[in-house]
Amino acid sequence: MSALLAFDVGRTVCRAALVSDGARVRTGDVPCTGGVADRDGVARVLAAMSAVTAGWPAPAAAAAGVAGLAAVPQAAGPLARGLRERLGSGTRVLLASDMVTWHAGALGGVPGVVLAAGTGAVALGIGATGHSARVDGWGHLLGDDGSGHAIGRAGLAAALRAHDGRPDGSVALLARLRERHGEPEALPGRVYDAADPAREVAAFARDVLAVAAIGDPVAGRIADRAATDLAESASAAMDRVGDAERGGPRTVACAGGLLDAGPVLTDRLDAALAARSLTRTHPLGDALDGARLLLEDPTVPHHALLAPATGVLR
Amino acid sequence: MSALLAFDVGRTVCRAALVSDGARVRTGDVPCTGGVADRDGVARVLAAMSAVTAGWPAPAAAAAGVAGLAAVPQAAGPLARGLRERLGSGTRVLLASDMVTWHAGALGGVPGVVLAAGTGAVALGIGATGHSARVDGWGHLLGDDGSGHAIGRAGLAAALRAHDGRPDGSVALLARLRERHGEPEALPGRVYDAADPAREVAAFARDVLAVAAIGDPVAGRIADRAATDLAESASAAMDRVGDAERGGPRTVACAGGLLDAGPVLTDRLDAALAARSLTRTHPLGDALDGARLLLEDPTVPHHALLAPATGVLR
Repeated sequence: MSALLAFDVGRTVCRAALVSDGARVRTGDVPCTGGVADRDGVARVLAAMSAVTAGWPAPAAAAAGVAGLAAVPQAAGPLARGLRERLGSGTRVLLASDMVTWHAGALGGVPGVVLAAGTGAVALGIGATGHSARVDGWGHLLGDDGSGHAIGRAGLAAALRAHDGRPDGSVALLARLRERHGEPEALPGRVYDAADPAREVAAFARDVLAVAAIGDPVAGRIADRAATDLAESASAAMDRVGDAERGGPRTVACAGGLLDAGPVLTDRLDAALAARSLTRTHPLGDALDGARLLLEDPTVPHHALLAPATGVLR
Repeated sequence: MSALLAFDVGRTVCRAALVSDGARVRTGDVPCTGGVADRDGVARVLAAMSAVTAGWPAPAAAAAGVAGLAAVPQAAGPLARGLRERLGSGTRVLLASDMVTWHAGALGGVPGVVLAAGTGAVALGIGATGHSARVDGWGHLLGDDGSGHAIGRAGLAAALRAHDGRPDGSVALLARLRERHGEPEALPGRVYDAADPAREVAAFARDVLAVAAIGDPVAGRIADRAATDLAESASAAMDRVGDAERGGPRTVACAGGLLDAGPVLTDRLDAALAARSLTRTHPLGDALDGARLLLEDPTVPHHALLAPATGVLR
């Protein structure tokens, strides 16, 4: 089999792998400056893709998962044309949202549900016929329930409640807040003036989970709530793609930095998933594996979710 | 009595009143561009104060409640000097946070608790000896529990839960979301790209309360939670200034746009306050009345909370 080129184009990093006979023979990554939905986004993404693969041999085909492509599907045509200009006009090019390539990689191309839990939180179900259901992922002001941001926000709020003398506060979380940020009065300035306030809030999630691990009841309830929220999102995605009724696998491939916090969250998540007849699994592979799979296997349901104006052989 | 000049310097509007023999003989307002804590903030605030009082007769004394002054107390000296340069070097000048002048106006100078509930939410207690307790007011990412933002956020999240097929959603709120913003998929773009995302979220509070008023249980629980949160903040402020133990009045002067939504919220708030032996009252006056009171009555406890380097006769 000729070499295949797989891309994972995130908002901050563009990764690529050249795959030959099933093995990655070259990999690389470059920083990105903004996503495809931004001004000059297509040109920026193409520049990053060129930079990371500079000097690599021409592939027979390329597939890319691109963050933000679902919001600007009209970018797919110019992006595919730009890639073919670079790689050769006969190159097959497939483009999809990065969630689709990540799903394909995590589950090895089979239908099912993936759950990503980091600063944000989103579940994606893809059914046997390629119908899909995205659950949550609404961002920190509208949702991302169970995410690092949700946990960090609830933890800071509970610390400030203790400081204020209100109910449902946690003196243990207040002590953590002081260790991390100094006096509470200084916190609003630190958060609201930060380059990325949502990330600043999410950074406190590790403290909340650490305090939950040593038995603080308020932090424990925040962790319980997060596990329930994540399981509810996964369960809704499973119900909407209908694999439950068809007797398909009730497994959920879970990934994201939040799950690295250890059993304080994952034990709760496993219990919340089990209560919904779901089982957590580790992802089989990453988004680069998923992009490769789209090129290698024409039977995976993810082909129904490719961006319009791409995904055709020529 | 000679004329007194009262200012209420907010982040967007600077208001002023000239008071003679207890009556406002002139009033005016001008837009502000940024607060005292911003770059060139002192110069901007002084320019706004000059603009709104241009052509007014010189007062014997002036007092100003200035938004943000608590965060940058070092601005008080330059601000007081600048005002005296404009008004005459013998003019008495008092400066305080706008919360202090608002408290003095709302309660007519007596100790007690005021509660402001608009886009944000904050309670301020001032005790008989001038000790104070500010509760919540941490902003939309860290607190403002019970605020318009908190209600709007919970309402949008419940609408999106219904859209996602998750538990605890509200189809009535989802219908309201569609009326207001179109399809849910368009909402993140509208909110996150807005000039003021927090205000955009808070604007949905009126819809949540309207849906609660017609019996939607999810919206009703959001309103219940908000009323409880606001009452808890008021109660914590009351406890911290100690008037409960001293047998002082257990009244809370409540103001803010959120309370204009009608009995759907105020009935709940009254019940939540009553459960804490507190009674809601309407403010007696506004921040301009409070600023005037600081000049007229040297016995009010608010004098202990004037900004340093101001508040001295000369």
